[in-house]
Amino acid sequence: MESKFNDDVIGRARVKDTPELEAYYKELETLGAGALWTVANDIEPWEPRTSSVPMLWKYENLRELVLKSSELVTPEQAGRRVVYLVNDKRKDVSAAVGWLYTGIQVTRPGESTSAHRHKASALRFIMEGQGGYTVVDGNKITFEVNDFVITPNSTWHEHGVAADGKTCIWQDGLDIPLVNALEANDYAVYDGKQDLKYPVNFSPLTYGGSGLLPADKIWDKPYSPLFKYSWKNVYPSLLEAAQVNYGSPYDGILMHYSNPVTGGHVMQTMGASMQLLRAGEHTKAHQHTGSFVYQCAKGKGYSVINGKRYDWKERDIFCVPSWAVHEHVNLSETEDACLFSFNDLPVIESLGLYQERAYEENGGFQVVEN
Amino acid sequence: MESKFNDDVIGRARVKDTPELEAYYKELETLGAGALWTVANDIEPWEPRTSSVPMLWKYENLRELVLKSSELVTPEQAGRRVVYLVNDKRKDVSAAVGWLYTGIQVTRPGESTSAHRHKASALRFIMEGQGGYTVVDGNKITFEVNDFVITPNSTWHEHGVAADGKTCIWQDGLDIPLVNALEANDYAVYDGKQDLKYPVNFSPLTYGGSGLLPADKIWDKPYSPLFKYSWKNVYPSLLEAAQVNYGSPYDGILMHYSNPVTGGHVMQTMGASMQLLRAGEHTKAHQHTGSFVYQCAKGKGYSVINGKRYDWKERDIFCVPSWAVHEHVNLSETEDACLFSFNDLPVIESLGLYQERAYEENGGFQVVEN
Amino acid sequence: MESKFNDDVIGRARVKDTPELEAYYKELETLGAGALWTVANDIEPWEPRTSSVPMLWKYENLRELVLKSSELVTPEQAGRRVVYLVNDKRKDVSAAVGWLYTGIQVTRPGESTSAHRHKASALRFIMEGQGGYTVVDGNKITFEVNDFVITPNSTWHEHGVAADGKTCIWQDGLDIPLVNALEANDYAVYDGKQDLKYPVNFSPLTYGGSGLLPADKIWDKPYSPLFKYSWKNVYPSLLEAAQVNYGSPYDGILMHYSNPVTGGHVMQTMGASMQLLRAGEHTKAHQHTGSFVYQCAKGKGYSVINGKRYDWKERDIFCVPSWAVHEHVNLSETEDACLFSFNDLPVIESLGLYQERAYEENGGFQVVEN
Amino acid sequence: MESKFNDDVIGRARVKDTPELEAYYKELETLGAGALWTVANDIEPWEPRTSSVPMLWKYENLRELVLKSSELVTPEQAGRRVVYLVNDKRKDVSAAVGWLYTGIQVTRPGESTSAHRHKASALRFIMEGQGGYTVVDGNKITFEVNDFVITPNSTWHEHGVAADGKTCIWQDGLDIPLVNALEANDYAVYDGKQDLKYPVNFSPLTYGGSGLLPADKIWDKPYSPLFKYSWKNVYPSLLEAAQVNYGSPYDGILMHYSNPVTGGHVMQTMGASMQLLRAGEHTKAHQHTGSFVYQCAKGKGYSVINGKRYDWKERDIFCVPSWAVHEHVNLSETEDACLFSFNDLPVIESLGLYQERAYEENGGFQVVEN
Repeated sequence: MESKFNDDVIGRARVKDTPELEAYYKELETLGAGALWTVANDIEPWEPRTSSVPMLWKYENLRELVLKSSELVTPEQAGRRVVYLVNDKRKDVSAAVGWLYTGIQVTRPGESTSAHRHKASALRFIMEGQGGYTVVDGNKITFEVNDFVITPNSTWHEHGVAADGKTCIWQDGLDIPLVNALEANDYAVYDGKQDLKYPVNFSPLTYGGSGLLPADKIWDKPYSPLFKYSWKNVYPSLLEAAQVNYGSPYDGILMHYSNPVTGGHVMQTMGASMQLLRAGEHTKAHQHTGSFVYQCAKGKGYSVINGKRYDWKERDIFCVPSWAVHEHVNLSETEDACLFSFNDLPVIESLGLYQERAYEENGGFQVVEN
Repeated sequence: MESKFNDDVIGRARVKDTPELEAYYKELETLGAGALWTVANDIEPWEPRTSSVPMLWKYENLRELVLKSSELVTPEQAGRRVVYLVNDKRKDVSAAVGWLYTGIQVTRPGESTSAHRHKASALRFIMEGQGGYTVVDGNKITFEVNDFVITPNSTWHEHGVAADGKTCIWQDGLDIPLVNALEANDYAVYDGKQDLKYPVNFSPLTYGGSGLLPADKIWDKPYSPLFKYSWKNVYPSLLEAAQVNYGSPYDGILMHYSNPVTGGHVMQTMGASMQLLRAGEHTKAHQHTGSFVYQCAKGKGYSVINGKRYDWKERDIFCVPSWAVHEHVNLSETEDACLFSFNDLPVIESLGLYQERAYEENGGFQVVEN
Repeated sequence: MESKFNDDVIGRARVKDTPELEAYYKELETLGAGALWTVANDIEPWEPRTSSVPMLWKYENLRELVLKSSELVTPEQAGRRVVYLVNDKRKDVSAAVGWLYTGIQVTRPGESTSAHRHKASALRFIMEGQGGYTVVDGNKITFEVNDFVITPNSTWHEHGVAADGKTCIWQDGLDIPLVNALEANDYAVYDGKQDLKYPVNFSPLTYGGSGLLPADKIWDKPYSPLFKYSWKNVYPSLLEAAQVNYGSPYDGILMHYSNPVTGGHVMQTMGASMQLLRAGEHTKAHQHTGSFVYQCAKGKGYSVINGKRYDWKERDIFCVPSWAVHEHVNLSETEDACLFSFNDLPVIESLGLYQERAYEENGGFQVVEN
Repeated sequence: MESKFNDDVIGRARVKDTPELEAYYKELETLGAGALWTVANDIEPWEPRTSSVPMLWKYENLRELVLKSSELVTPEQAGRRVVYLVNDKRKDVSAAVGWLYTGIQVTRPGESTSAHRHKASALRFIMEGQGGYTVVDGNKITFEVNDFVITPNSTWHEHGVAADGKTCIWQDGLDIPLVNALEANDYAVYDGKQDLKYPVNFSPLTYGGSGLLPADKIWDKPYSPLFKYSWKNVYPSLLEAAQVNYGSPYDGILMHYSNPVTGGHVMQTMGASMQLLRAGEHTKAHQHTGSFVYQCAKGKGYSVINGKRYDWKERDIFCVPSWAVHEHVNLSETEDACLFSFNDLPVIESLGLYQERAYEENGGFQVVEN
């Protein structure tokens, strides 16, 4: 970055140390103070600066270990039986990227947990199994592979798998690191399991209509009343959009899961999307603020992130840090590929911090490092 | 109403005429003025007061006449070939009820109109035919029976039927009387037909996903980006909602067509809904502000409006004026019935004028007059 | 308008009567129906069309008659002792212009009324006197000349003048005609006078700070929590704005009274403004939708409305109908002039019906008729 | 907290280490993964947990050192000549509390800086001097002691003091640590000083009216168009509010500086308030999420924060971390005291993370540690 950004200009700190200044700094320190110019260039970077690195977690490596956790601990002991994925540079905050946590949870047929809640928000993306369900504030939601389910801020929630189901594995996404960083998290345990306050799947059956909302209900919560976004609806919608849209040059056909009552993100702190890369599609590179965790929901391909190639296929998980240059490639010439992702865009956008930039060099495509 | 409301109380005008006052009134009149107390009780009614009457338009009576219009006039001569339905008490403003206009338009295979636009907003509900389409601001939308289509305020629009289609009949709903009353209507003709700016059905294919919005688009118009609400999606959604909801005691399973980007009404001046009355359902009576035009989309039944029974079956149209007491009955013990309706609720709500009241007498059901 | 708008074009109704058609029309009429093309050109005007005429009410003519009302009737008899101003073309709806009502109310020292409320909203602009007050939902507001006071939709309200005050005269503005037209008005009388629920002037003392809102209060009503806008604040603000703004070429320095909690209009159905015309200022002419009632609060001048000159001085009231071409002139070369006005812009804007157009001919100034 | 919160319950992680588990953990680590239950109790605290400590910075200690900086470095060398105040536990992110930065800036008569901008937002509270000004996006704002000035996200800004002024000292508040943490900060230098695009003080003269907004302007930025909140308006407003409000039991008369166009906070990431403690007032204790930096603007008193007393007088600065229990005391029996504060409430609120709790023990007042 030397060539682009030079701190030896008016408007940047350029003070040289002297004995007098050093004495001055010491004196300030005793008062809980410092001289801004000693840190200014560091805390005011020219461009967004991330402390995360791109990472890829191959499901073929993790799956056995995830399943093994169900032999090693019970849900009662563990709270939740989850293998979490941690960024090499974010171990101190248990984050996969930026301030986002992600983990892989396994639940066996007949298992279920007691309920709890927290200020952190959660979401799930279903990877394997049958008969899984979650209960959110008394609303039982059953789910299937590639369904997307939300557990918003402060809702009571618990999970389980029907006795006649098959072992379920899903990806959890939470904003725990963020809510901890903002010094606002809390936690409460429910005494046992929740009573169901609604018929099973009340939320998706009531709020899942395309362009329809129930006239006799007022929804005043700051998150989506639609708790499940079903793959059986989502994938056909992507195909329909692909019929009539070129889509984004950087993302192909990218749809945000949205709150039908506001058109906004599904929760206040995390958004999520599903995108379709058409057969053979190779998107252009760009960079933007916001942290992203991806899971391949269908197909196979690779992403180039900051000049390095990360190959993925179904169920692999990877992350793109803030401001990382990235592009996506569908390696099949005949099948589409789908990438689920979740992000902190609601935070970045509501605080006025979103910016993006197209990668201009080399025709818009990165040179991949060997 | 004598028993409930008495003008002989403090707070109402109770001035008796005297010769002196009459002279005073005359003097005021010459100055473009008057004494408020001579009109106060009239212009400040105790309860909402409508100038419309309930009406029912039987399709079996109208259908032949509607079709006949296509023999009598061409679209070129007529502008649009429409039989409009007019309230007995609103002929001066050509309204079906309140400030809402409705009409039945017929278009033959191969016919199409040139485009025009106006500050008034329009909507269509499809009654018969095949191969019909509308073009809204360069976006061609094809439609089928029971589909609901919008043509918002100031969008260029034109309609037609494919040459290999079947004669199409649809109901138009417009706020022309309202926009005229608010002294804000305008009109412009397009020179011929619009060029298509998007692939056919771009809008519903892009915005019609359940809980999904395209990430690469910003919609900043004050109406829904979803121009068509398809019966093939709407009816299953009603059935799904019916599985898990009791619904409204006054309306059964009532869903508003909604703008997926805001969760609000489809347009700024008119809303629309589809409701399902379960087999044998007889709703309770209530009254509320806002004017409504209904069309039976499926089944048969009747509504009791201000104590009088109006029997309807598929394609019949009727209206419920503001503050009229009304209840709905599905006459089938085995089949559900569906009522489409459109209304001026966006106006009533955004101006703070909505109120409703349950009918309390007689167990909540009106006594039907003979 | 002949030259601009021609109905003999494609897209307008151009059907000639024939015996066959006349028979057809009769048949339709028996079914509560008609042929759209017989009314289309009338109900779809090329441009916004008003049914009001510009009018000027000179205070010097009205003042004595207004005061005389206090000899002729008591508040108890009259409900409110008000001379209302009625447009020559809107007598049927008791409107001063469009759907806006205005009147001049007189209250003598020591007089007060009992409370009432209605769905219609009200506002007051104080013309004369001392010691006047209004009580809005238990909040007593004292007022002085040129203060602007609101009484929103469904708030209990009553007025009076302190025993040691001076006869107060103020202008009332209400949306009664609109709320009646929308078939939503109601009325209720309070049993006597309201108890005060807050200290006197709680609302302006709490919400009247510039850029400040009380941190411990949540205001969830759809109208301004600030019930009084004091001339002693408003006039200096206009002068300050005039120091650094050219203002609008059509209106000089025009400020909307605004809801400090939303930045929007003070109420859902009526907005109000104060404008300052600098010494010698002659604004350019324009036209827009929306109906306006003005009162001169300071100075003297004239307005040209649809080519006719209306001279006004302090306390004179006049109206500008929707789409009327108008311009304002301050006749003093040394003093500024101020015009208070209220309008239905919240309706026009929230329904998407606002449009404006500069007057292009003659350098932007109308030729005044003799 | 032992007594209240016990991790040995269902719903918390209670797995004991075994050799088998330790081997498992090692294996996970090689894959960039871990077992959630090994960190769950730590990253899911029972209650909001801050990493900051309460701190007080006495102005009498700092003032000389701040002034001395103007002898040691020039603005050209330093970028800005600022002594920043740093929390003992947040030195790694240069924050005064939570993710908020604060510093004290000194500018001598005739000095001025070149302009720059950044994604971080800034605010100033004026402590001393005369003739100071800031230029925000071409809008020059002059300020006086106790005025509050904003420099929103991405606006060009520069500061200076008139040659005939007196040395100015002000407090800077920025969200630099937050925007860095969110990996979204950037920085750009302007080539020299900005041209003025508006008359001096355009913003406060145009937008500073109480309940008034200019009718001819559309403000579409996500921050307040009012860039200066003048003490000469703010203090009288507090006195007026104090006449008719008990205020908050925890904060006395507390007013938020607000965006007049939305009623919301002045910027997207930081809010600010001024509060008045009446003579002798001792508020009750409470705790809430959000981080706060205070400056005493008038009078003297103390705050009890987490059981420890911090005495302050005019110009002293102190902080209250998230969830710290705190109460305020005005030590004068005859004079009011005023506390300016700024905070991250816009973040906490927009992300759904605000919660508060009254301190219930000991009659609502903390026992002060010796």
